[in-house]
Amino acid sequence: MRAEILTIGDELCRGEIVDTNSAYLAARLWDLDITTRWMTSCNDDVADMVDAMTRAVGRADVVVCSGGLGPTEDDLTVDVVSQLAGVEPVIDEPAKARMLERFGRLLAAGGVGNVEELTRIQLRQVRVPGGARVHANPVGLAPGFEVALRGVPVVCLPGVPRELYGIWDSGLGAHLAQLREARGDVERIARRIYRAFGRGESQISQACRGLVDDVAGASIHYQVKFPETLVKLVVRDRDQAAADARLAQLDEGVRARLAGIVYGTGDTETLVEKVTRRLIERGVTIAAAESCTGGMLGELLTRMPGSSKAFLGGVVAYADDVKVRQLGVAQATLAAHGAVSEQTAQEMALGARERFGSNLAVAITGIAGPGGGTPDKPVGTVWIALARRGSDDVTMKKLSWPGARDQIRLLSSWWALKLVDEQLDRENA
Amino acid sequence: MRAEILTIGDELCRGEIVDTNSAYLAARLWDLDITTRWMTSCNDDVADMVDAMTRAVGRADVVVCSGGLGPTEDDLTVDVVSQLAGVEPVIDEPAKARMLERFGRLLAAGGVGNVEELTRIQLRQVRVPGGARVHANPVGLAPGFEVALRGVPVVCLPGVPRELYGIWDSGLGAHLAQLREARGDVERIARRIYRAFGRGESQISQACRGLVDDVAGASIHYQVKFPETLVKLVVRDRDQAAADARLAQLDEGVRARLAGIVYGTGDTETLVEKVTRRLIERGVTIAAAESCTGGMLGELLTRMPGSSKAFLGGVVAYADDVKVRQLGVAQATLAAHGAVSEQTAQEMALGARERFGSNLAVAITGIAGPGGGTPDKPVGTVWIALARRGSDDVTMKKLSWPGARDQIRLLSSWWALKLVDEQLDRENA
Repeated sequence: MRAEILTIGDELCRGEIVDTNSAYLAARLWDLDITTRWMTSCNDDVADMVDAMTRAVGRADVVVCSGGLGPTEDDLTVDVVSQLAGVEPVIDEPAKARMLERFGRLLAAGGVGNVEELTRIQLRQVRVPGGARVHANPVGLAPGFEVALRGVPVVCLPGVPRELYGIWDSGLGAHLAQLREARGDVERIARRIYRAFGRGESQISQACRGLVDDVAGASIHYQVKFPETLVKLVVRDRDQAAADARLAQLDEGVRARLAGIVYGTGDTETLVEKVTRRLIERGVTIAAAESCTGGMLGELLTRMPGSSKAFLGGVVAYADDVKVRQLGVAQATLAAHGAVSEQTAQEMALGARERFGSNLAVAITGIAGPGGGTPDKPVGTVWIALARRGSDDVTMKKLSWPGARDQIRLLSSWWALKLVDEQLDRENA
Repeated sequence: MRAEILTIGDELCRGEIVDTNSAYLAARLWDLDITTRWMTSCNDDVADMVDAMTRAVGRADVVVCSGGLGPTEDDLTVDVVSQLAGVEPVIDEPAKARMLERFGRLLAAGGVGNVEELTRIQLRQVRVPGGARVHANPVGLAPGFEVALRGVPVVCLPGVPRELYGIWDSGLGAHLAQLREARGDVERIARRIYRAFGRGESQISQACRGLVDDVAGASIHYQVKFPETLVKLVVRDRDQAAADARLAQLDEGVRARLAGIVYGTGDTETLVEKVTRRLIERGVTIAAAESCTGGMLGELLTRMPGSSKAFLGGVVAYADDVKVRQLGVAQATLAAHGAVSEQTAQEMALGARERFGSNLAVAITGIAGPGGGTPDKPVGTVWIALARRGSDDVTMKKLSWPGARDQIRLLSSWWALKLVDEQLDRENA
């Protein structure tokens, strides 16, 4: 089953916004065993839209469009699709009711001036082609809809990404899965995403070399999402159980080859969220002492709601005398070893542990560049230290990674998280 | 002059990566008065690539492609274009020489095993269609090239974004500008981007309403890049001087209507960079005391190289007793007013100023949510304080913005920067 994705908007063709909807839709369709053959973007122009849709229904089995459903005169998708289907646009009453309810609330809150005036303009965006199947929008005003053109289903969605996601999740995805099923011959997909951190993509792909070679329907892909790499393992088979079984078998191989590198699986939980979740679950408190990262580690450790249960606080010790005054690093240590050294990192971590009274304390000091490097300590030299309550044994990690400033800072913060994650593993054991 | 952009790659059509090249190219072409009519993505498939290119040269005046120039068997662009042009692929000798030189260096550094082996595979990516105009790649291995198909120039570029940017900047952009000039009838563009922070998009567009209505060739666009809004003013005219003059006239209107909101112009310098640059230029030192932002403000203030000249450090006082111990906030203040209050923010800023000995100190305390709100202090309530050396007059700002956690944190950090920016304005005056 072949899909074509069509995204519509002058702002796309002027390069003012990057089209993320096409990638979202293509990925979701691929999960349904629907292969996207073409992705096209065009302007808010009737002739071009007619041309694009006509071509799409001529070569695809399903067409998914986004954009052109707003309230302005530039928003032409309802009109173009109605014209191609030979019907008139009509008001979708449930969408209109939701709109009035929402504007009523805004009006009550003093947020808008005049509900009639607003409604007159906005009514444009609750239209659908007469007879269309409506895909309700749980997030915004404009409903999605579907019509058949020359027997090919054409689904039209708003261009606002979170509205498009909302419509997909609340029913469109399941509906397209049914369309796919009805055609038969469906390949089932077993799939797992491994999140890998601590080695580069080339080392990770090298480690997995040959793994899937003799396994029918299996493939492995790598996607760098700096500083981590996603390893995507896929097995396709007409029979879901067979695909699942081969995936389970391969799973052992991936985990063995990437031991110590894979920290989790799945789409959603990154190392940042995993570490914060584990700290909260176990009631382990943590403090941070940061130099070259400037607060990034603290920012990461406070992204998740509820992080105040684990993260007590930190010191950003950018200047040397802040390291002395706020963290208790010895002047003699700085003088003898410098601010970027194993000894300074260790004293920063121990100082943070004492001053914050936390279970764990992690310190980062390094040279993020582009200036400040020396032959002994080139740009990308970073020391990371993890201290824990009740022990003077501080875990150390040295990085030497000559990248760009922002990458060095992000990599350093993630390595600090990795030390914490490994410490939680040890305490678990 | 109409352009078509074609991006090629299975990973695009599977939704594994978002196509940013199309937006980049469309924006650059638009600056040259070349309008992108179509943007198409297809798979690494000979028939589909032939189809897409044939269609593109049938309806556009110039075609720009990206992708399919790598070393693997999946990379088919050179073969497809050669076939359509009726020529054979040939090795581009300058690109080959650069490749050998680069591999030689890697070999000397012990980075690769065998230069002959590597070269054999990699030679594939230094091919171009015979007779093509080569657009050298200053960043990577695969050269860009250009051939005429049915008289229409077709430019092919690597899919790696920084290589594509490098080729554009090092000559392709100028070359396409010449092609555009040669066709005559060029509309010149005068253009200015205003960076606005402190009001929402709707208030900003309301303030500018009617501004360009009576000005020939003028248009104004708004692009939200949370937490700021870009206001894009464009004047088109056959005569550059006339366009420039009308832009200069409109400039006064924009600045008057958005006084206190526009903090800068241009593509590159955000408020983060502007504030850091000004602090460094004037030798003004700063410290941060952060609660709900968890280190984000420090992270922003240390993004730019050289920021250690201005940013001394900070305290992330997430837990209440850290506010007391590390910043000297009075227990009585916390007890009487709470952690999120004008009084606590003020004491945090004064405490940071004393402990870090900085010229300026900025404090943020608020409720980022989603939990923790009360009727008195709902989620999105944030107090920001700016203290300065030699004065006990602390500048205060209260936010009440009920958004998502990440947005509240980013907005708060930007407001802290805005207070600093305004303080630097006052000191300048």
